[in-house]
Amino acid sequence: MREIVDLNCDMGEGFGQWVLGDAPDEEIMALISSANIATGFHAGDPNSMDRVVKLAHDYGVALGAHPGYLDLRGFGRRHIKMTSEELVNDIVYQIGAIREFGRRHGASLQHVKPHGALYMEVAVNEELSKMIIDLLAKTGGGTILFCMEASKTYQLAKQVGHPVVREFYADRDYSNSGQIVFKRQVERLNPRTIAEKCVKACKTGMVTTVEGDEIEIGFESICFHSDTPGALEIGKAIRSGLSDAGVAITPASTLLEQSRQR
Amino acid sequence: MREIVDLNCDMGEGFGQWVLGDAPDEEIMALISSANIATGFHAGDPNSMDRVVKLAHDYGVALGAHPGYLDLRGFGRRHIKMTSEELVNDIVYQIGAIREFGRRHGASLQHVKPHGALYMEVAVNEELSKMIIDLLAKTGGGTILFCMEASKTYQLAKQVGHPVVREFYADRDYSNSGQIVFKRQVERLNPRTIAEKCVKACKTGMVTTVEGDEIEIGFESICFHSDTPGALEIGKAIRSGLSDAGVAITPASTLLEQSRQR
Amino acid sequence: MREIVDLNCDMGEGFGQWVLGDAPDEEIMALISSANIATGFHAGDPNSMDRVVKLAHDYGVALGAHPGYLDLRGFGRRHIKMTSEELVNDIVYQIGAIREFGRRHGASLQHVKPHGALYMEVAVNEELSKMIIDLLAKTGGGTILFCMEASKTYQLAKQVGHPVVREFYADRDYSNSGQIVFKRQVERLNPRTIAEKCVKACKTGMVTTVEGDEIEIGFESICFHSDTPGALEIGKAIRSGLSDAGVAITPASTLLEQSRQR
Amino acid sequence: MREIVDLNCDMGEGFGQWVLGDAPDEEIMALISSANIATGFHAGDPNSMDRVVKLAHDYGVALGAHPGYLDLRGFGRRHIKMTSEELVNDIVYQIGAIREFGRRHGASLQHVKPHGALYMEVAVNEELSKMIIDLLAKTGGGTILFCMEASKTYQLAKQVGHPVVREFYADRDYSNSGQIVFKRQVERLNPRTIAEKCVKACKTGMVTTVEGDEIEIGFESICFHSDTPGALEIGKAIRSGLSDAGVAITPASTLLEQSRQR
Repeated sequence: MREIVDLNCDMGEGFGQWVLGDAPDEEIMALISSANIATGFHAGDPNSMDRVVKLAHDYGVALGAHPGYLDLRGFGRRHIKMTSEELVNDIVYQIGAIREFGRRHGASLQHVKPHGALYMEVAVNEELSKMIIDLLAKTGGGTILFCMEASKTYQLAKQVGHPVVREFYADRDYSNSGQIVFKRQVERLNPRTIAEKCVKACKTGMVTTVEGDEIEIGFESICFHSDTPGALEIGKAIRSGLSDAGVAITPASTLLEQSRQR
Repeated sequence: MREIVDLNCDMGEGFGQWVLGDAPDEEIMALISSANIATGFHAGDPNSMDRVVKLAHDYGVALGAHPGYLDLRGFGRRHIKMTSEELVNDIVYQIGAIREFGRRHGASLQHVKPHGALYMEVAVNEELSKMIIDLLAKTGGGTILFCMEASKTYQLAKQVGHPVVREFYADRDYSNSGQIVFKRQVERLNPRTIAEKCVKACKTGMVTTVEGDEIEIGFESICFHSDTPGALEIGKAIRSGLSDAGVAITPASTLLEQSRQR
Repeated sequence: MREIVDLNCDMGEGFGQWVLGDAPDEEIMALISSANIATGFHAGDPNSMDRVVKLAHDYGVALGAHPGYLDLRGFGRRHIKMTSEELVNDIVYQIGAIREFGRRHGASLQHVKPHGALYMEVAVNEELSKMIIDLLAKTGGGTILFCMEASKTYQLAKQVGHPVVREFYADRDYSNSGQIVFKRQVERLNPRTIAEKCVKACKTGMVTTVEGDEIEIGFESICFHSDTPGALEIGKAIRSGLSDAGVAITPASTLLEQSRQR
Repeated sequence: MREIVDLNCDMGEGFGQWVLGDAPDEEIMALISSANIATGFHAGDPNSMDRVVKLAHDYGVALGAHPGYLDLRGFGRRHIKMTSEELVNDIVYQIGAIREFGRRHGASLQHVKPHGALYMEVAVNEELSKMIIDLLAKTGGGTILFCMEASKTYQLAKQVGHPVVREFYADRDYSNSGQIVFKRQVERLNPRTIAEKCVKACKTGMVTTVEGDEIEIGFESICFHSDTPGALEIGKAIRSGLSDAGVAITPASTLLEQSRQR
């Protein structure tokens, strides 16, 4: 039984005058404990980054970098065949950008969570996972890496003792392999169903797969997406569902700190 | 008589597989004490930034951010009508990106020098100059701002005591107003003439203007451009000219430190 | 008294997965006679262009190019200091792109209407206006240029006999100079008020300015913006207002053809 | 024995103030019969397109579109996972843009040749090849498609009778499968060796592969790249080699026309 959990959401995923999703940033921010803020490659721009980093800080939400493939048109959901060196350089660039907005507003960087197709690439690419872990060890040892349990990233981070957080995807389906089923478009989901799925995962450590089986799932953070239709209702349902079930929500860094102290 | 001076050059101004100028980065880096490294908006990309930041560090050259307008096609030499808030956000983004590559390679950020049309805009825009000084005070008080003596930036930085360095432009002409004559294309220049202009400026504090007059010019750093045709020969001529004249070359931060200690 | 008028709207101004405004393209398309379709520089991408060009053709709406400054972040509403040659090359590029989608779907190009800050620049820039008229004369003499009456463009087009259409801006205010008051953000407007303004302009040829005066206004086309909040209601109100007042809506090319035949 | 052949080269592959390769456009243009002009996605911009299209027309060189993946940083040499529909829309956009510059300067579009990773993708992707052939049939039946012999594109174009030209790659190696060995970086090559390879291919229809075998190779056009180091010398060597061997150089459209008439 998991008694505390982090709740994270992708934030700041508009661009210029375009907004994403129907949920106001302020209302989402009031629900979560960690924000993955878009860093300009798949979404976001310096104006949105400044605004959303400040907002996260004002709400006591921990700051995360959300780097992606350089592909605004494709929202970072299309794989680009780049070398690991190229990808790590792109990640350094994006981490630095968001960290500087944090510095401006008094917030330090809690975590890094790659976006979309890059998240999936890192998960299966051992070389790239290793390079990112090495990078974070060099540029700030405490920066937490967010990933799936069923990933090379998680295995490697655990091996070398780098702080890592496994995510449970509230608004995505799982296959029997323990990986999420990646989609470019997500339909409207039932908030209550999603909340129940999260509560069950916290209480039993199990999730039902698209194949209809029950599999074990390990995680420290629950993720939902601000561009999922009805995101605000989903976030509220998860939050109140967890609360009713006696599961506390706290930033990933606090959660890891508590684990270490036990 | 100026006995020590900083020598700075814009670096890393290629993009993808395109290179700028005919001078190899290594050879320029061996000549200078401060590098203004392009941060991806007017030139440069994460791969070039990683390579050039590391190179600067290897050569003991101080690291500078060289932010510009987001205009790769125009090489940041075309004015874009943006609000000061928008411009400062773009600058935060770019400073953060280059600072992170410095962090990766063990180099801290010495200075910020806006590029091209943005440099000219900051010089005349009091509001923007003030906002940049305020930003640097917040995100790292010691970060030196590079500017022209004939600029709002210099006046304001002096007023509030923010570390500031005035530049002398080796490969640009001056008008009687003390401002440089901005050009989108620069023709091939005589290295010896440029070196003599620099030595004279160090020894007498004077420069000849396009109008044919002599004006006083205050500066702590000499700048030449790596995309000026024959940049390498220009850099070598300046360096040996200064050496022959007994003027030492040292990074801006060391120079300011020495001034403070007197 | 104007008995027929063109009704035009900017269309396809999303980007990638981002949409602009709350009005479905299909419903706007059902109201208008000419569509200005974004060509990828300030908004729009090849996918949206393909979809919206086909949609326009299906609805019998005339096809227009809507070129802008290359500035997605600024939605083409920020002036960029470019030479007229550079701007015309950008316009050629964008016209060609949209014309090709028209070619694919069997629609020929009716008109060109620059967007946002480029529209305002062309209006006051005689050299640029002349170069665009020369361009259109070379690449397809019949392509209509959309502009304000109070513009260099209109004067020059009239002088050389190039087909030109003056616009009346339903959802923008006029100053006594006859120019529209340019805004980066537009608030929610009353559809009925806008419709009445349009009907009055058709019937009397007059508009009330922000200074409170009545000025004469000549036009052949009424424009409203799909990103103005409540755009769909505005479009419907204009259409029914015009219908009630006995003003027919027809594409600009048909309107010009009828004028010539009288 | 092939007595006439087309000679094509990728042109206009700079961006903004950056140039590619060391060969002046004018000198390359004097050597070739067909130019594949970059259309702004992997290289090129409206200014270069205007200049190079005019240059091609002045030299009597046939105009070709050279569309690529939207990836300036990667020079279109990195695969991006896009749907065929998305890719075709990108191709429509780019063809339209270059066609419009042709229209401005009195040149009609002879051919389309995808660039880099897109060229390789089209070659193996039957669905995409078919969609491009269908597109060209709709937007201008005579537009020639350039491809490798060992490609789905060639098979399909032949099946439906769409005009198609097979290329022989002067400055790339072949494998036994008849496909070229794709490289992101190409080293300096010996012009005489390349010329001999071309002459042999014309005379015997054979090429030596990287495996050391001789394979048959069918083609109507010889391609060399303007960014291959020493491109100008390579082009001159091919041209004089062909001339000495009695092989005439003529644009692909003329060549196909002559084939039809026999």
